[in-house]
Amino acid sequence: MNGARSLVRTLVDHGVDVCFMNPGTSEMHFVAALDDVPEMRGVLALFEGVATGAADGYARMSDRAAATLLHLGPGLGNGLANLHNARRAHSPVLAVVGDHAVSHRPYDAQLQSDIETVARNVSTFVRTSASTPRLGADALDALAAAYGPPGSVATLILPADVSWSEGGAVASRPGLGPAAGAAPDVAVLEAAAAALRSGEPTALLLGGRACAGPLLDAVADLAHAAGARLLAETFPPRIGRGAGRPPLERLAYLAEFAAAQLEGVRHLVLLDAKSPASFFAYPGKPSDLVPAGCTVHPLVGPADDLVGAVDALAELAGTAAGGAPRQEAAVPGAPSGPLTAQAVCQSLGALLPEGAIVSDEGNTSGLFAPGATAGSPPHDWLTLTGGAIGQGLPVAVGAAVAAPDRRVVVLESDGSAMYTIQSWWTMAREGLDVTTVLLNNHSYAVLNMELDRVGAEPAGPRARAMLDLHDPDLDFVHLATGLGLHAARAETAERFHEELGRALATPGPSVVEAIVPPLL
Amino acid sequence: MNGARSLVRTLVDHGVDVCFMNPGTSEMHFVAALDDVPEMRGVLALFEGVATGAADGYARMSDRAAATLLHLGPGLGNGLANLHNARRAHSPVLAVVGDHAVSHRPYDAQLQSDIETVARNVSTFVRTSASTPRLGADALDALAAAYGPPGSVATLILPADVSWSEGGAVASRPGLGPAAGAAPDVAVLEAAAAALRSGEPTALLLGGRACAGPLLDAVADLAHAAGARLLAETFPPRIGRGAGRPPLERLAYLAEFAAAQLEGVRHLVLLDAKSPASFFAYPGKPSDLVPAGCTVHPLVGPADDLVGAVDALAELAGTAAGGAPRQEAAVPGAPSGPLTAQAVCQSLGALLPEGAIVSDEGNTSGLFAPGATAGSPPHDWLTLTGGAIGQGLPVAVGAAVAAPDRRVVVLESDGSAMYTIQSWWTMAREGLDVTTVLLNNHSYAVLNMELDRVGAEPAGPRARAMLDLHDPDLDFVHLATGLGLHAARAETAERFHEELGRALATPGPSVVEAIVPPLL
Repeated sequence: MNGARSLVRTLVDHGVDVCFMNPGTSEMHFVAALDDVPEMRGVLALFEGVATGAADGYARMSDRAAATLLHLGPGLGNGLANLHNARRAHSPVLAVVGDHAVSHRPYDAQLQSDIETVARNVSTFVRTSASTPRLGADALDALAAAYGPPGSVATLILPADVSWSEGGAVASRPGLGPAAGAAPDVAVLEAAAAALRSGEPTALLLGGRACAGPLLDAVADLAHAAGARLLAETFPPRIGRGAGRPPLERLAYLAEFAAAQLEGVRHLVLLDAKSPASFFAYPGKPSDLVPAGCTVHPLVGPADDLVGAVDALAELAGTAAGGAPRQEAAVPGAPSGPLTAQAVCQSLGALLPEGAIVSDEGNTSGLFAPGATAGSPPHDWLTLTGGAIGQGLPVAVGAAVAAPDRRVVVLESDGSAMYTIQSWWTMAREGLDVTTVLLNNHSYAVLNMELDRVGAEPAGPRARAMLDLHDPDLDFVHLATGLGLHAARAETAERFHEELGRALATPGPSVVEAIVPPLL
Repeated sequence: MNGARSLVRTLVDHGVDVCFMNPGTSEMHFVAALDDVPEMRGVLALFEGVATGAADGYARMSDRAAATLLHLGPGLGNGLANLHNARRAHSPVLAVVGDHAVSHRPYDAQLQSDIETVARNVSTFVRTSASTPRLGADALDALAAAYGPPGSVATLILPADVSWSEGGAVASRPGLGPAAGAAPDVAVLEAAAAALRSGEPTALLLGGRACAGPLLDAVADLAHAAGARLLAETFPPRIGRGAGRPPLERLAYLAEFAAAQLEGVRHLVLLDAKSPASFFAYPGKPSDLVPAGCTVHPLVGPADDLVGAVDALAELAGTAAGGAPRQEAAVPGAPSGPLTAQAVCQSLGALLPEGAIVSDEGNTSGLFAPGATAGSPPHDWLTLTGGAIGQGLPVAVGAAVAAPDRRVVVLESDGSAMYTIQSWWTMAREGLDVTTVLLNNHSYAVLNMELDRVGAEPAGPRARAMLDLHDPDLDFVHLATGLGLHAARAETAERFHEELGRALATPGPSVVEAIVPPLL
């Protein structure tokens, strides 16, 4: 058995049965192994950022690691932005990166570069596998690192000769998978419990694993019983929301709004969240958003046992029985009139099906989406965890592969879409039930706002031109058609609502381009 | 004056007056400075790989450095593949990468990552500018490193507060620019001259700066007078060719063909080229392509004085007077019948205008292009220097910006085009005279060949599916239209010839999609 076959078999045996890939010559033996190990599903991407973002989306919806297969340093570079987002999401991802044969290295051939140095930017684990018999075990070391806790990106660099040589051995390690993590620090736990009992204004700040699944219900009940507020970080990897779920207020992207949300809080208990800071720095404004006089209780970090900590906190605080209110079902009516970003969000709220997964990269145009969908049937919401745009479409690919019985909706903005537009082709190829709502306002609207906010005024026409996506206008119906998808354009609210309804009711992927004015 | 303004002014004062950019919030002050320093041309790209590839193409045609402006680690990641190609081309490129404000770093905000570790993969110089008054001087240190010799990628990381703070100072350093480099090693020079005088089979292997401009004539004359063969490496950054230029045979991509080209050579003199090695490694085959019994004379490396070495070699070898034959003008006729890759190349040979610049990422489908254009009017040919695909379109953007009076033709294949397809939008926006010939064979054809060559047989249908770009078919006419370009599709040779002629005669960018069967 050659190395590649032992690797793929080892991965499948440990639950890694999807590989999002954009392979090259160095990876041909891995590709050939797909016929020997048919349990491994190869999903082809035309660009590596699609593959890495898909692995992130897959992990967010399945809590399992997918593999990616990338081609040397440049392939890893192309995949880096979405591995960055995966890192911030604490998604377990196994990034397999092919390399030249070890025997080829002395020649410094064209594609050679220092892959490890690139990988370190995003990975908790980086190893170049050095021998075929060890390859399976190396893969399990990488997979164990990917599961952590914390969930993270692990990079296994695979020289071509390690892959093609005979002598591969399937490795086995029982129990490899997500693990609970460390118990909370007792002193922090007791301080947090005391805060909850104190009657002082207290908030639980939720991030990471705390925003989805049954745990969110437990945390909401705890907060309710203690009279504490429930807040979520701005960009959690996955939020369980909609009718019947606990309402969860997210900190705003804009620091001044987030500061207002936190005003008066005296105790902030972090549950898989970081202490709040602004997304960017601004001249003369603080980055730290913790209000003066507020004590931060870092109870649960990404490597800690979140469930155990919440149980312990509820017990210590005497709040186990609390029954927090749940979101009532309430959907907006169909919008009418000229199409705006707000009308798009209203339509989405009206039509979002039960069990939907929303991949949200709507940016400024998506501002009203959480509000409009708050009372829609229960659904999951995936956000831009690492701030590297070009995530929305790839994450949707992976989410759809992980949850084939659910409808995925991408709220995507024009500027962000163009980093990983190749995702649409993979959606078409795999027949994924993904509906893209493309919010086209013909600008990097967030930058028009930020240009003012960072004090880069007076900005003249040459600066403004760098943020403007007119001339030529991007036509996403043509782009989608070119990538093999059905697409329609809407310039009125009525037309948008009709097209979105049709898209959501039709199996497979499609695109509705909404022409909207910039919100800001 | 703030830091950003001092930086842009310093760059312009030293000949860096184009910046290919995809900025974000951290870079807004640089963007705002475009209005204060109107000599700096900002060229917007929708994806960072377009910006970095354009800087490479610009450098290849102008011998000058352009700047790129990228957004933190993920933006650099997206630009890495084409910076890798620029590194291999020894193109001077100044990569400016925005970072969070220094004051913001303790908060590990979403977009934060270790930018320097990524930059090291491609850069000879990496520095995070630490103070506004020093920023201009830091930029000149970076620019000096970019010019080398050897020409290389220099990365200047620019924290937002260093950019926005007052106290910037325009820096000045006379004479900054491309430099000659070190004199050749005398012993190697004498051995190479002795080889040329020996009568033994000798070849000059040309790379880097040796394949273009008047120097190529001098080298060809030298080889002719000495009875030596003239060979070029497989992927030089720029080749001056066509009627009236010295014919230059390139080593083949396929190692077995390159070995045949080198067979019998007893002395190989390297002129800004590396000792020949295969592009990839293959099981049981040598990577080293130097024939047994052949002595390699590494006369000129990328940091050495090429012109001086060629002069010295000619003098020592007594060959200064040689008048090598030049390529005769001869163009093929118009093709007819079903469209094939060969017919496309024939048509290109028939129509290529004088002074054209060909950015060649035709891969398997472009195999016949050099032959078909050998006797076309004089032109320059730019190749895939680093092997990271997705280079052809961005390099064309930069070449067109550097040489606005010349027609740029991109030979682009379907798979490669999809990494940086966003380039078309920048071509349309800037009104660049770039004609893309899109060779669509609906496959990663080179991988179908490599799958066999690396011995990954028997490859089954699941492996073959990973190399197949049908289902859905990519439609490049729709893609180009969506990005604002005129486009046409051809399925016969006559139609292709007609459309190519029309495209070459029409100002501005356009696309001709050629539907061709895979060559291999």
